[in-house]
Amino acid sequence: MEQIPEPARERLLTLLGIFEQHPGEMLKSGGIEALTGWARETIRKDLSCLNGEAAGSAGGYRAQVLIPALKRALGLDSPRRYCIVGLGRLGSALLNEESFARGEFELAAGFDTNVNRVEILGGKTPLYPSYKMSEVISRLGIAIAILCVPREAAQSAAEKLAAAGIQGILNFTPRTLTLPAAVTVRNLYVADGLRSLAVAMGRREKD
Amino acid sequence: MEQIPEPARERLLTLLGIFEQHPGEMLKSGGIEALTGWARETIRKDLSCLNGEAAGSAGGYRAQVLIPALKRALGLDSPRRYCIVGLGRLGSALLNEESFARGEFELAAGFDTNVNRVEILGGKTPLYPSYKMSEVISRLGIAIAILCVPREAAQSAAEKLAAAGIQGILNFTPRTLTLPAAVTVRNLYVADGLRSLAVAMGRREKD
Repeated sequence: MEQIPEPARERLLTLLGIFEQHPGEMLKSGGIEALTGWARETIRKDLSCLNGEAAGSAGGYRAQVLIPALKRALGLDSPRRYCIVGLGRLGSALLNEESFARGEFELAAGFDTNVNRVEILGGKTPLYPSYKMSEVISRLGIAIAILCVPREAAQSAAEKLAAAGIQGILNFTPRTLTLPAAVTVRNLYVADGLRSLAVAMGRREKD
Repeated sequence: MEQIPEPARERLLTLLGIFEQHPGEMLKSGGIEALTGWARETIRKDLSCLNGEAAGSAGGYRAQVLIPALKRALGLDSPRRYCIVGLGRLGSALLNEESFARGEFELAAGFDTNVNRVEILGGKTPLYPSYKMSEVISRLGIAIAILCVPREAAQSAAEKLAAAGIQGILNFTPRTLTLPAAVTVRNLYVADGLRSLAVAMGRREKD
């Protein structure tokens, strides 16, 4: 896995999504080129990183074979546990979106500083008051946190998560987090998504 | 604006976020280099796209001056109207996150096929049954839709939005949308965020 360079890994992740949208089909590199805009030589080279069994034939790449091979190559073949920190409207909505885990991620816990909220919210996921975060994360081996707390609580909650051994944070807050290099962060603040979309739209209007 | 190439625009958007995190401060290109990992020459070159008033002095770039200049350069200075389509748990959570609009976006409407849901959900935003989508979008001049419908409804809802004149879609569904080139799409499916985070974490573990 470590031999695959980062841009190729990101393309492989996109290819995984494409094969999943076409289960049971054969896809040719030319067809993938049309979907992604990447040169078919790049696509062939990226997919040649996979084990021989996943190599394409003259007929193309078989989605059914490529999907598990890509998951293995990208380290998505063994499920990781995650938790949701902050159970306001957005956090509790995500609590109930378990369907999105696709067997790659397992929602193991939810946390909120408000003990009443923890007691009132129902559902299948065990919920805890935030002061139990460190103990629960370490006991359950939780690797990832989805951060949905208010902006002003984000940095301190993230620091507690880092101290508890969390390796990755999906950050839904507007706050840019400053954390030790051992913690990987992806920012998913909705307003930034709107901005990025608007900037791309602006460009398109000029085309 | 059209002279700024796409990678520079994306960096300028990130710089805008950084200046906003440091309002009232002077930032030097070396400090920004430390935050972003981009060479200071690149940062200086990107920011030189802005009008002269925003040029840095020996003391650095003044956040207070750069923020409005960057918003203007990126076309974020006049607010655009958006709507939320699909008012299940996630959609209705986003309905109440108006605070994220930062004056650049104005939430103008929410839509759901379920008329009861439209009637029951309260709040400041006017809600409509989906069959009124085309009329309302055109009457209110809504440019952007946040798509939160179930996966199986995503493509047809997106096509209706495109036909109604929507220019951009923030897609929270797992479905990859196939739309006319005039519609810009950004995918924000949460499970893809988890995947991308996990793939980055996997790489880091090997470092």
